[in-house]
Amino acid sequence: MTKRRGVAVLGSTGSVGTTALKVLARHRDRFEVNALTAFSNSGLLKEQTDAFKPKFAELVTNGGRDCLVKAATRADVDIVLNAVVGAAGLDATLAALEAGKRVALANKETLVMAGHLVRAAITRGGGEIVPVDSEHSAILQCMAGRGADDVRRVVLTASGGPFRDWEPERVLRATAAQALRHPTWQMGRKISVDSATLANKALEVIEAHYLFDLDFDRIDVVVHPQSVVHSFVEFVDGSVLAQVGAPSMELPVLYALTHPARVADAAMPAFDPVALSPLTFEPVKHDRFPALQLGIEAGRTGGAAPAVFNAANEQAVAVFLEGTIAFGEIASAIKAALDHLAGAIGDSRAALLSADAAARAFVKERFGC
Amino acid sequence: MTKRRGVAVLGSTGSVGTTALKVLARHRDRFEVNALTAFSNSGLLKEQTDAFKPKFAELVTNGGRDCLVKAATRADVDIVLNAVVGAAGLDATLAALEAGKRVALANKETLVMAGHLVRAAITRGGGEIVPVDSEHSAILQCMAGRGADDVRRVVLTASGGPFRDWEPERVLRATAAQALRHPTWQMGRKISVDSATLANKALEVIEAHYLFDLDFDRIDVVVHPQSVVHSFVEFVDGSVLAQVGAPSMELPVLYALTHPARVADAAMPAFDPVALSPLTFEPVKHDRFPALQLGIEAGRTGGAAPAVFNAANEQAVAVFLEGTIAFGEIASAIKAALDHLAGAIGDSRAALLSADAAARAFVKERFGC
Repeated sequence: MTKRRGVAVLGSTGSVGTTALKVLARHRDRFEVNALTAFSNSGLLKEQTDAFKPKFAELVTNGGRDCLVKAATRADVDIVLNAVVGAAGLDATLAALEAGKRVALANKETLVMAGHLVRAAITRGGGEIVPVDSEHSAILQCMAGRGADDVRRVVLTASGGPFRDWEPERVLRATAAQALRHPTWQMGRKISVDSATLANKALEVIEAHYLFDLDFDRIDVVVHPQSVVHSFVEFVDGSVLAQVGAPSMELPVLYALTHPARVADAAMPAFDPVALSPLTFEPVKHDRFPALQLGIEAGRTGGAAPAVFNAANEQAVAVFLEGTIAFGEIASAIKAALDHLAGAIGDSRAALLSADAAARAFVKERFGC
Repeated sequence: MTKRRGVAVLGSTGSVGTTALKVLARHRDRFEVNALTAFSNSGLLKEQTDAFKPKFAELVTNGGRDCLVKAATRADVDIVLNAVVGAAGLDATLAALEAGKRVALANKETLVMAGHLVRAAITRGGGEIVPVDSEHSAILQCMAGRGADDVRRVVLTASGGPFRDWEPERVLRATAAQALRHPTWQMGRKISVDSATLANKALEVIEAHYLFDLDFDRIDVVVHPQSVVHSFVEFVDGSVLAQVGAPSMELPVLYALTHPARVADAAMPAFDPVALSPLTFEPVKHDRFPALQLGIEAGRTGGAAPAVFNAANEQAVAVFLEGTIAFGEIASAIKAALDHLAGAIGDSRAALLSADAAARAFVKERFGC
């Protein structure tokens, strides 16, 4: 028996966090949960603490954001599962990478707003990022150790969200309750809205750019309503690999912990292609979902633009969920913020956080109540 | 520039052979065609010889079967692409493996009739087999260097052939012209009929058993009429990888030459999931296609049974194509031969060839004209 690897779960009471603990409970022979942090759900954190007896457990609302970095850099932590929602997860990712740890990253905003800083932290500290997003986990698995040179293109699949088939006019007026009704994935509120606008897919395109060192011309998106094919990798010889299976975050979590190895897990359901049939693929309807193209363009622009895109989106989703703006205004708010902050600088953590704050303030002032 | 690898193409004028030469013509910087053999098409062999100027070129009808072994064991040949149809390919495969060469194997009958001998030849000579069958190439690519211990199950896809939707009674009376009308693949006559009976899929299950060291309980078949997913590998952690793309033998040929590397080939078409949509999967209708289960059972039985299955099938297909028996009698002939030769011994090449000959003679006598 090899030594168990220590795991910190940041955001342990959220959707990915609770899934992670479910998986970790099945693999106690390999992994030891040594740190838990949650935002505000003290009741559930108490339950988790009782179940896993971590040496460190803290609520952000009590201990402040510092507790994320503390948990992420502990000596008894080898793997940091960062499932914090939004830009709040950045410092913990950077600190963990500089401390040479593996970051199992569900917090895609980290890479979107500060991909260059994350790369620099990896170079300095020797850490590594393994994605927990189902699409990026799929790509990592399909690449199976090959580099970007062997890849012609990756194709991220998108469910298309609850408004995939809606008329454009109706999409503009969709309510929060409608946006939260995701057809295939059970997820948190913010990411559910992002799936409805396809902003989530824009974040994933940018994430793929940094994770796999692929330029934007080599990252495509296809709508796949069943969410069974989690993404495709097309290689230079024309061969295409896909990772498939019923939608569940358990596999991406497990694989991020064990990569590049595979660990047997009998609780993972047997694959049944007949039950999952048919699988369909459609082009993205960009006219209905302008946030996707806005995000990809921000990724191409680079600098502070991805951070502005991400922050404006987060703020716009928040005011949408409060009922202050219409669904269609989320993309309008993002576009206005990107235009307004086109000159923002993104060459340092401070500059990016400043651009992030400026984008939030802009959206709040212009679109908030 | 590294030294070019020498290639022998056995069966160069057939369906896989001509595809192989098309691929090899695009990769003359890496591969040199040093030997060609064909069965009887002297005109096409002449054309190929003019185009590739191999040092060795021979018709089996002139030079005898010995020319296959001669071509396969030449010092200037590193890779033997064995695209001979049927049991006639066995000796060349064994000889190439004993000479330490890579065999790019399109001749699945080799593994089916003599899997144990092939394994022994690999151990003795240090050669290796890389499959050219699209399904097995898919599995090899999805496994990406992992061993059988990491695999929960493989699922071979089957187009279902032209009679997939036919009523059982009508299938029994299908004609040769109908059986040769394969819905998705352009192939030779024998393999087209095998796809219609699903005997081909039985051969592939046995092939997968030997290639990937998987017991028969870990090899399943699913009907997938579009032939876009070329097979699935389900790993022990529940993850499933698939290799996908429009049906073409060019990729399996190229990959068998370059494995484990991938070589850029701009002539390989770009992947278009929207154009290939929808993808459907159905259970096999075993009542309509009894040859599949007969073949899998022969594989489980081992010994001479797979050789008897293969030889009886070859002979039955031949008399079916002559119009002597009905489509439904192909499976009956196989079953009768397996019953008749249940006691046949399969512990040596001589024993297997004798079982092969006995099965052919039995079918010819009982079902021939």
